[in-house]
Amino acid sequence: MLDGFFSPKAVAVVGAARDHAKVGHHVFANLLNDGFVGSVYPVNPRSEEIDGHRCYPSVLKLPGHVDLAVIVVPARFVSQTIDECAQVGIESVIVISAGFKEAGPEGGALERELLEHARSGGIRMLGPNCLGLISTPASLNASFAAGMPPRGHIGFMSQSGALGTAILDWAAGEGIGLSHFVSLGNKADITETDLVQAWWVDPETRVVVAYLESVSSGLDFVRAACQLSADKPFIVLKSGGSDAGARAVSSHTGSLAGSETAYDAAFRKAGIIRAQSVQDLFDLATGFSLQPIPDGPGVAILTNAGGPAVMATDACERAGVVISSLEHDTIDALRNVLPAAAALYNPVDILGDAPASRYEAAAAALYADPNVRAVLAILTPQATTEPVKTARALVSAARKSGVTTVACFMGHDSVKEAWDVLRAGSIPVYTFPERAVATLAAMERHRERLTRPVDEPRVFNVDKETVAGYIAEAKTAGRAFIAEERAAQIAEAYGIPVPKGGLARNLEAALGFAEEAGYPVVMKIASPDILHKSDVGGLRVGIENPAELEDAYDDVIAKSRSRMPDAVIWGVQIQEMVSAGREVIIGVDRDAQFGPMLMFGLGGIYVEVMKDVTFRLCPVGPREARDMLRDIRSFGLLRGARGQRPADLDSVTDVIERISRLVTDFPEIIELDINPLIVSDAGHGCVAADIRIGIGGQ
Amino acid sequence: MLDGFFSPKAVAVVGAARDHAKVGHHVFANLLNDGFVGSVYPVNPRSEEIDGHRCYPSVLKLPGHVDLAVIVVPARFVSQTIDECAQVGIESVIVISAGFKEAGPEGGALERELLEHARSGGIRMLGPNCLGLISTPASLNASFAAGMPPRGHIGFMSQSGALGTAILDWAAGEGIGLSHFVSLGNKADITETDLVQAWWVDPETRVVVAYLESVSSGLDFVRAACQLSADKPFIVLKSGGSDAGARAVSSHTGSLAGSETAYDAAFRKAGIIRAQSVQDLFDLATGFSLQPIPDGPGVAILTNAGGPAVMATDACERAGVVISSLEHDTIDALRNVLPAAAALYNPVDILGDAPASRYEAAAAALYADPNVRAVLAILTPQATTEPVKTARALVSAARKSGVTTVACFMGHDSVKEAWDVLRAGSIPVYTFPERAVATLAAMERHRERLTRPVDEPRVFNVDKETVAGYIAEAKTAGRAFIAEERAAQIAEAYGIPVPKGGLARNLEAALGFAEEAGYPVVMKIASPDILHKSDVGGLRVGIENPAELEDAYDDVIAKSRSRMPDAVIWGVQIQEMVSAGREVIIGVDRDAQFGPMLMFGLGGIYVEVMKDVTFRLCPVGPREARDMLRDIRSFGLLRGARGQRPADLDSVTDVIERISRLVTDFPEIIELDINPLIVSDAGHGCVAADIRIGIGGQ
Repeated sequence: MLDGFFSPKAVAVVGAARDHAKVGHHVFANLLNDGFVGSVYPVNPRSEEIDGHRCYPSVLKLPGHVDLAVIVVPARFVSQTIDECAQVGIESVIVISAGFKEAGPEGGALERELLEHARSGGIRMLGPNCLGLISTPASLNASFAAGMPPRGHIGFMSQSGALGTAILDWAAGEGIGLSHFVSLGNKADITETDLVQAWWVDPETRVVVAYLESVSSGLDFVRAACQLSADKPFIVLKSGGSDAGARAVSSHTGSLAGSETAYDAAFRKAGIIRAQSVQDLFDLATGFSLQPIPDGPGVAILTNAGGPAVMATDACERAGVVISSLEHDTIDALRNVLPAAAALYNPVDILGDAPASRYEAAAAALYADPNVRAVLAILTPQATTEPVKTARALVSAARKSGVTTVACFMGHDSVKEAWDVLRAGSIPVYTFPERAVATLAAMERHRERLTRPVDEPRVFNVDKETVAGYIAEAKTAGRAFIAEERAAQIAEAYGIPVPKGGLARNLEAALGFAEEAGYPVVMKIASPDILHKSDVGGLRVGIENPAELEDAYDDVIAKSRSRMPDAVIWGVQIQEMVSAGREVIIGVDRDAQFGPMLMFGLGGIYVEVMKDVTFRLCPVGPREARDMLRDIRSFGLLRGARGQRPADLDSVTDVIERISRLVTDFPEIIELDINPLIVSDAGHGCVAADIRIGIGGQ
Repeated sequence: MLDGFFSPKAVAVVGAARDHAKVGHHVFANLLNDGFVGSVYPVNPRSEEIDGHRCYPSVLKLPGHVDLAVIVVPARFVSQTIDECAQVGIESVIVISAGFKEAGPEGGALERELLEHARSGGIRMLGPNCLGLISTPASLNASFAAGMPPRGHIGFMSQSGALGTAILDWAAGEGIGLSHFVSLGNKADITETDLVQAWWVDPETRVVVAYLESVSSGLDFVRAACQLSADKPFIVLKSGGSDAGARAVSSHTGSLAGSETAYDAAFRKAGIIRAQSVQDLFDLATGFSLQPIPDGPGVAILTNAGGPAVMATDACERAGVVISSLEHDTIDALRNVLPAAAALYNPVDILGDAPASRYEAAAAALYADPNVRAVLAILTPQATTEPVKTARALVSAARKSGVTTVACFMGHDSVKEAWDVLRAGSIPVYTFPERAVATLAAMERHRERLTRPVDEPRVFNVDKETVAGYIAEAKTAGRAFIAEERAAQIAEAYGIPVPKGGLARNLEAALGFAEEAGYPVVMKIASPDILHKSDVGGLRVGIENPAELEDAYDDVIAKSRSRMPDAVIWGVQIQEMVSAGREVIIGVDRDAQFGPMLMFGLGGIYVEVMKDVTFRLCPVGPREARDMLRDIRSFGLLRGARGQRPADLDSVTDVIERISRLVTDFPEIIELDINPLIVSDAGHGCVAADIRIGIGGQ
């Protein structure tokens, strides 16, 4: 995929310039000088030749077939150029020119026009307003960034051109290899999703790294990213800010979902490893591209100094990285090769005077231990330390063993050469123990994810027709919310337990429902037009017997009629009094990008004051549902704290999954809140005491 | 202070060696070659001369007065050497030799012996088992670490020698200047506290940086650190691990205090800036040593690229760093000097093609704005960027303005020279925007602290005598806990509200107390020997009238007598039934190092399940007490959530401060828990419903 971009045979530079200060010259020169072996044609009507190469007046006059055109002409001429490219069968173009969406509304119009031309000409387009791209396997530098990064296995895309240049500089400086570098620009046509798909199948790319400020098509992106992350680590730094406040606060759940919540939920669903900073991005990219994922938990720390080992151990503990228990044989082997004062148990401290040979011997013992799935080698430059020799020894030992190895060689000039040796030998090296551990922790989380079975959402036997009918009814009536009585029926249709009772159109029916539900019962005025029932006297609780019910019936109907004379009144809703239990909230908010997001939290103050909630993108599978319960800080209250019996957790996850199914089946549901879902002790189920469903225009 | 160490006139190296591989040679050579202008005398009975310098057979034979001796002889000879030093009036020694406490119990005994010799000889000793020390103002390298760091203003101490060498290497490599470097070793005599005191008064040292694994004398350290941090930034990286599990879990509060809690509370009290990682330590040390603390909140971000500015803005928001609102004049000035497409509002984006002159012009406008108290200059290397010229322009503009300036020049080789220019010009430079912001955030927190008035603990009118009597009573009886009845009286003596009522020795007194407190009341058997009163039938709640009370009295006394025949029975405790309110916990746990630590949290599940608690070292001042309330996540419940009225916060802080006073006055109290303190709505006070006081041997 995107082969026309990554391995073209011939490239035209439209807008190639003789002036060495111009971008049109940089691009042309990069194509010529960075080793590309295909043909490169400069196109410029005002030049006969550029740097000794014959220049063509237009794309239409090119002497042979071209796969890729790099366009560097002023914005207003780009559409015409695209048309000409289509005419001569060029299928891939990179538009470097700026002056489009980023330049205001006029530019936006120009960009839409551009996209139409590309689409109608059957052309895929990168940009506009981008740096271009680099493909190291093709020695292709179709960008105006100076210098090729080393060839390697990281596919890197950046929505910020400036960050792109900094990254290329870093990759070259640290000797980190890339397969492709892509500057996304305005993403008019080609987006991050296209690249995710392309790199998924690209054998040269083993790790995908992205800097993104937004995602163009949320669900496509998540789908593609899921596929990719099952095969290759996908590391993303997403900067926020841009979309803060963009989300309308339309419901309870909505008001708890910050602008970053949806990205968090989406990235989690997609198996994305989220970098927290540029440094994190660099560190993780290096680690994942150079070393294999460990095949299980368990890290051995090998060190010539106590302090940094303590720091590494602390960091492991905080990050949940397991320190291996060494086998007896390993301890014996270490004892044989190490001085008496060495620490034989993990962390293995081989002392400050350790020469390279001692590192080598200890590493051999550790690599042989089946509990050691990764090794972190720490070195501080002391009087007799041999950083370079140690680095060489580690590279060869790591290579032989195949065990994941990362290094932390602390210091500066004394270890610089050793860093180069380690990197050249595919061992990622960090200046600080915490950075090395962060990489191991990310690897461990990725491994766990890869080894987990797929969390397939369960299939439920539900009554879609009923729900469709009620939604249509509300839409026809022009309501933004489904009436409370109907919401309960919708829930029931999806197998979600609601209080016993029903909608009674007359007193007789009301008495019947009360008999069925068992006294005491609750009565609410049933009207799609009355949302706040108690405000109009339309609510009565604790009705103990038929006489009280009869009384209440007249009163509720009369009060509602007199206070809301225009309201349609269906009758009354009779409900059992739900006995006390632990209250939880399940809510759904539909994100414009990523679709329905399901929220779970404990009711009342836990949600309102402590914001103790967790979100997942729908559909939610059974494992995810269980994870949601455990995610919240107040989970202990559900599991049973202070002598309380555990709550019926299974019934809660069941409701979560059914709600997920409901909102996935009906995109018209734009928000939904069950508040509270009253949960009884284990084995005794739960009841959705109050359900609110908002519908929208889709 | 410690002048003998930092600016000696003559130094002896005892154990100076001819063999270039030996530590004894390194130390001698460093003293000779790193520019020290005083006299250096090698001492070694087995050599006549070392590298052409006359060698002395013993300290006793030295030709002149010596201030400092560096001892590198085997462990067993060190005590004798110390004695000889004392004989000739040497007052300062550095013991580099190893083989002491770190080598096991025998070494520990040797170290104690060593310390005795030093003390009795009136000698201050650094070490044993250390690298030595470096004093750049004296060009003194009295260590076996290779190379002098540049002269500067950071006083650095390290409890890990290995980390010390890495830091020296880093300081040299990055051109970061130190005043002194001290390897603490085993800290037998000189500890971190001595250095804190010395650097507080040392004019060469402007920033103090420490890597610590433990603190030797907690309260002295906190006292000295408080003094220091009021004048100079004090940055500490404390690694954990070593003391995990060392604290006995002796009480409720104790079980919530992890091993790091005490350090956190102590460092907070001491105004220490706590680094989270080695990198953090480096970054903060650099920032604080090169730039002044901003004189108010407000950062301007100047950038040639959008992406990194977004990241910096995100990081500012997360860290609570205020982005300045620019004045109209500033915007106008920027408009005059920047291209039309530039972003004039903060962050100020001067566009990807910005030359140095544009940075200079924009920086001038920003420095002139009174709302700009710090500038973060971001540069990414793009096609026409001039990193070095830009760095020079920034250095001169920053120097002229005096406004705090930090830089983030991203990339590698393209910006390397610019980094050197910035550092040489005293502008700290970071590769990543987040690191630069972390430094600004630490500076801002430090500034806030410096400008706050001192939080003097309040003085209360209390009845110490009563408390002393009850503590003596319990001690005499050999009890570990104060009887519940007495605990309430102790609380009352310190002005802490307790339920109305009292200890009744007979029925008549009980009836009187009940009348006073008002029915309904609670009755508890009053016995110092019965801790769990309800287990023996010694508790009755909801006693409504005198008849019920009479009944209860006989029953409670009879049951307690029959089930605990050996218990001393004082009578019964009568208490008012405390009406419902919000329940909080106030507890104290005495840390072996730092003394009493006060804990605050909401009662019940908030503490037990959610661990929503906060700790402070005593004595707690009024501001600290208020901060404690606001620290916990569930503070919203106290302030009044969901339509509830606010709780009486003032009465809670009052109790916190009084408890702090109580445990400070009485070191015998080793633990204390008020659980719950029942808090009424604002203006209606609080009541300590249950108080438990544990006493210890002091």
